[in-house]
Amino acid sequence: MKYYIGVDLGGTNTKIGILDENGEILIKETIKTFSEKGMETTLNRIWGTIEKLMDQKEIGKENMCGIGIGIPGPVINEEIVAFFANFDWEVNINISELMGKISGIPTKLENDVNMIAVGESKFGAGKGSTSSITVALGTGVGGGIVVNSKLISGMNGAGGEIGHIKLVEDGKLCGCGQRGCFEAYASATGVIREAKSRLAVNKNNLLYKSLDGNLEKLEAKDVFDCAKAGDGFSMEIVNYVGNYLGMGIGNLLNVINPEVIILSGGVALAGEILLDVVKDKLKKYAMPVTLNKLEIKLGELGNDAGIKGGIVLFL
Amino acid sequence: MKYYIGVDLGGTNTKIGILDENGEILIKETIKTFSEKGMETTLNRIWGTIEKLMDQKEIGKENMCGIGIGIPGPVINEEIVAFFANFDWEVNINISELMGKISGIPTKLENDVNMIAVGESKFGAGKGSTSSITVALGTGVGGGIVVNSKLISGMNGAGGEIGHIKLVEDGKLCGCGQRGCFEAYASATGVIREAKSRLAVNKNNLLYKSLDGNLEKLEAKDVFDCAKAGDGFSMEIVNYVGNYLGMGIGNLLNVINPEVIILSGGVALAGEILLDVVKDKLKKYAMPVTLNKLEIKLGELGNDAGIKGGIVLFL
Repeated sequence: MKYYIGVDLGGTNTKIGILDENGEILIKETIKTFSEKGMETTLNRIWGTIEKLMDQKEIGKENMCGIGIGIPGPVINEEIVAFFANFDWEVNINISELMGKISGIPTKLENDVNMIAVGESKFGAGKGSTSSITVALGTGVGGGIVVNSKLISGMNGAGGEIGHIKLVEDGKLCGCGQRGCFEAYASATGVIREAKSRLAVNKNNLLYKSLDGNLEKLEAKDVFDCAKAGDGFSMEIVNYVGNYLGMGIGNLLNVINPEVIILSGGVALAGEILLDVVKDKLKKYAMPVTLNKLEIKLGELGNDAGIKGGIVLFL
Repeated sequence: MKYYIGVDLGGTNTKIGILDENGEILIKETIKTFSEKGMETTLNRIWGTIEKLMDQKEIGKENMCGIGIGIPGPVINEEIVAFFANFDWEVNINISELMGKISGIPTKLENDVNMIAVGESKFGAGKGSTSSITVALGTGVGGGIVVNSKLISGMNGAGGEIGHIKLVEDGKLCGCGQRGCFEAYASATGVIREAKSRLAVNKNNLLYKSLDGNLEKLEAKDVFDCAKAGDGFSMEIVNYVGNYLGMGIGNLLNVINPEVIILSGGVALAGEILLDVVKDKLKKYAMPVTLNKLEIKLGELGNDAGIKGGIVLFL
């Protein structure tokens, strides 16, 4: 039996799992990343956890065929990290080589959202398809695109950076410094901004009441919950966000024409109330031919998607 | 020596060429398509021309390894035409099988703009790259995307239909029936519409004078020529079009992060005056990382691109 290791390196936590060749997770553990202790220390700690998990499952190193690591930053050629989005680590560093030396096991890397995308594509909501786009709706909007069963990584590791396609010329300011980005409208942050902006002039609604006037504790989930409870004010925000989500996804459909769109991340948990708006708006933004046989699904692997993506890099 | 045939099936003319295995065109001919005579008649006439060209070059059928045909419409699995954009022919027809029967030679199909894209990618402006996007700026805006050295055809043959990504919510009406499409702004038709709309209220400019007031004969080229001659009115139109061209291409860069952008078609002939605006606007719309090492080039194969694409389907 062959085994693989999937690592999802995060800003706060790092998820580590051992997978069999069918992509089943045999054992997994989450450790604190402690990136401030430096790159080599962190990689050594990750390898220490892997060794411990191997011991627990009585799997010898000779049966370990590869380590796949999801990285918070652009990855080039599955080996070099252009820069780490959150860590104060070196730029253009060959983490694949470094981890290979530490572990003695072939190591490949991908951007973390791309890892989630290949995981979902192979073992989750995209299982059986050859083309899928995963739209990760969290604090930001990330993406991963699989076509002809291969990931679009991009020359500089920026393939699938769908959060920064521009939907509105000179639109809302985005965290990236540019304006009108998909992410500025359809992320959790986008939902919260829009809600706060409207609450500044309208307090006669369920959303405001549910917060007891404390706007600081507002989360995207509150907007969706109030909309589900029948609050017209909140439903207008859902319509507003769903419109741009439809425009962004519609643009992707016209470029890629995939078999499956997979929505993951916190905002996707809003479920039907948001999905219904998106599906309706797609009729306006996507060419009709791209909607024929298209499946729009929620992600199925949750927090395991990134770990499971690890093995796909070796298949 | 192995030989291939490239066919670029057009609404009016059909271009046919015999290629050696290096993609060099040994002989070529253009015939009228006469699609109104029906599909089988047309395919038989194309095969008749191929036989004549083979005779002229004294190449036996046993050395012919494949026919690649560019189709004006969406192509599925390199064999089925979902529908013909301009012809009154059957829908969902397996032209690959039909042409294979007529000719006795394996036949593969692709959408015509996709064929131009693979031709440019392999033998033209994208030579040596593994990822490129060809943006065909003509009457409409078409596209073809090559990633990991393979074309993105799309589940329903609509991969690379970049002309219909939406740049403006509820924007200009497009020929497709939707609004705000890239094509409505950056095609030759888009240039002419914008120019005519402005000329309706401003006649004190070089463009109006050069037309002797006859707006019906206005072509996109006139706008570019007058801008080059220093006409501020025309230059404003170039800036307007270049802005949306930058926004459309920028969005593609953020999704695909390719090595090369190839501009082809009539509008691309405007050259530097348009290209300079686009490059400047890209700084506003594309993530900086996607511009690193990016090449933006004009197509190099002209009318031969579609024929040369024919062989790429077999490589």
